[in-house]
Amino acid sequence: MLKNDTLIRALLRQPTAYTPVWLMRQAGRYLPEYNQTRARAGSFLGLCKNPDFATEVTLQPLARFALDAAILFSDILTIPDAMGLGLHFTEGEGPKFERPLRNEWEIRNLFVPDPDEHLRYVVDAVAQIRRALADEVPLIGFSGSPFTLACYMVDGGASTDLRMLKTMLYGRPELLHHILDVNCRAVTAYLNAQIEAGAQVVMIFDTWGGMLSAAAYQEFSLSYLERVVAGIKRSYGGDTVPSIVFTKGGGLWLEDIAAIGCDAVGIDWTMDIGTARKRVGKRVALQGNLDPTILFAEPRVIREQARHILTAFGHGEGHVFNLGHGVSQFTPPEHVATLVDAVHELSPAFH
Amino acid sequence: MLKNDTLIRALLRQPTAYTPVWLMRQAGRYLPEYNQTRARAGSFLGLCKNPDFATEVTLQPLARFALDAAILFSDILTIPDAMGLGLHFTEGEGPKFERPLRNEWEIRNLFVPDPDEHLRYVVDAVAQIRRALADEVPLIGFSGSPFTLACYMVDGGASTDLRMLKTMLYGRPELLHHILDVNCRAVTAYLNAQIEAGAQVVMIFDTWGGMLSAAAYQEFSLSYLERVVAGIKRSYGGDTVPSIVFTKGGGLWLEDIAAIGCDAVGIDWTMDIGTARKRVGKRVALQGNLDPTILFAEPRVIREQARHILTAFGHGEGHVFNLGHGVSQFTPPEHVATLVDAVHELSPAFH
Repeated sequence: MLKNDTLIRALLRQPTAYTPVWLMRQAGRYLPEYNQTRARAGSFLGLCKNPDFATEVTLQPLARFALDAAILFSDILTIPDAMGLGLHFTEGEGPKFERPLRNEWEIRNLFVPDPDEHLRYVVDAVAQIRRALADEVPLIGFSGSPFTLACYMVDGGASTDLRMLKTMLYGRPELLHHILDVNCRAVTAYLNAQIEAGAQVVMIFDTWGGMLSAAAYQEFSLSYLERVVAGIKRSYGGDTVPSIVFTKGGGLWLEDIAAIGCDAVGIDWTMDIGTARKRVGKRVALQGNLDPTILFAEPRVIREQARHILTAFGHGEGHVFNLGHGVSQFTPPEHVATLVDAVHELSPAFH
Repeated sequence: MLKNDTLIRALLRQPTAYTPVWLMRQAGRYLPEYNQTRARAGSFLGLCKNPDFATEVTLQPLARFALDAAILFSDILTIPDAMGLGLHFTEGEGPKFERPLRNEWEIRNLFVPDPDEHLRYVVDAVAQIRRALADEVPLIGFSGSPFTLACYMVDGGASTDLRMLKTMLYGRPELLHHILDVNCRAVTAYLNAQIEAGAQVVMIFDTWGGMLSAAAYQEFSLSYLERVVAGIKRSYGGDTVPSIVFTKGGGLWLEDIAAIGCDAVGIDWTMDIGTARKRVGKRVALQGNLDPTILFAEPRVIREQARHILTAFGHGEGHVFNLGHGVSQFTPPEHVATLVDAVHELSPAFH
């Protein structure tokens, strides 16, 4: 039994005493203890691939802040790495693949990795983190979305215009659909393996879906998100496992995202959360949506902006406080404490 | 008298025989003749600052394609350069300022450049291009928005998170308001000087407004866009001068943008243009919104996607066909011809 199930209840729009809060990328470079562990691990991938290190950094922010959830420390690109594309990180340039998908033969040969075999280190990390958490707060598992994985697999790394991906999308859509179909089955199996290993909530990050046209988003991202949501376990060991879908830049399509069967929708900071709530009604919970750069401001401003979001969402259930994107590496850790405390202090008035 | 006034009429939602088309960044690196002129000029800024070169490259796409408008060839950062911030371009890294705004003293000392003195080269280029066009098609003048200029002035160049700008926005909002007030007066004077020199339409590019929260967008970008629109000449020499406002990523705020008094709103490719039209009704014309990466696809796909947008907008007036962002440097020029011809061939059925 979870000692703090506020997150789970809020995701399922059940009554809670206050608004739960966790932060995307809450374990990361803004924490000196993270940088120390990373130095010991030798690299970012060294952290991800070693369950001891992954457990250590997952728990670090919980030791500092009164967060209502832990999130598995991992990378969104573990799946294509397990497919053999060769993930590596270059300083300051983000993730790159050694062998991006450059021809039809490579695409036709893609396979669905077996999580228990090719992604064993993630499954093991989930189990180990879950044990270490001792039911204090729930553990969130996650994956990149089929579309977002495809962006990196085709362009070979982060791209400001998704040039190669979109060339395929408009020129050879059947090839992209093949990649997305494989990714969809891989993501579903991966999330189910995380659930079986102990993840109590799952989140799907669609980081790049917001760069598509409305029609292309429906066809190449949302339809696969819907298939993933339909394929993941709704409960495990008697407990409901809520799902969260987050398309960065997807505000225009909020109603469509809310209709795919997920329990909650993450929103970035560009949308007023009160407007978002009116648009989705009672269909889903909402997670968000403080601009992460607000954490550079002084504590007074952070509290004011947290209050602004709580007020905009208004009274009642179904809000998980979070940022609209990951914590920046330049964030003073004490400002995260200010935010978490402000949400806990100000939110009971709305419940 | 303009021989082809289709653009002007469409922006004012008057009847036209077909849908006019021009492309953001229609003069640029995808054209071999542009690269030749640029090589002669020595640099990008060398092109902008010499009215002969600026005229030459402005006219280049019109010699190739049946475009319904010319747009002044210039940079959105001419104003802060005229303020003394020292604009320069480094290969592959985009614009940088040598002296970004780093302290209050520099901000308090900002001045509104006199277009006829500090930006003479732009005013001269407008006049020269207008003469060279010989009233074949209208000439569009433009400026960056007060907020977008401030982003570059504070961060010193393009920034993925506007870290320094947002630190000021949340930490010292009164300082940012001071910059925006100066920029607002500068943009207004600059656009009026372009109108007096011969620009027949003006467009304001708010490239970075879409990175703000809903509330911050209203306060720090839209309110200044509204002041600029109120301050620019509505007509000159007896002719109405329509205005276009484009906030990239501003789809969530479409109704608000449509209410500031501009004649037309540019939209990027993330919004379905039919949905956009329903949202704004008859208040403004709409300009857009093909994903520029579609120009990498084969002609059949380009025609199909152009038809998709024309169909989504539907019958009636008030549509200017354009991309949702500038032409990519990797675009085959013949694909631009395909697009322009497709719009001219397919659109009469909607008028």
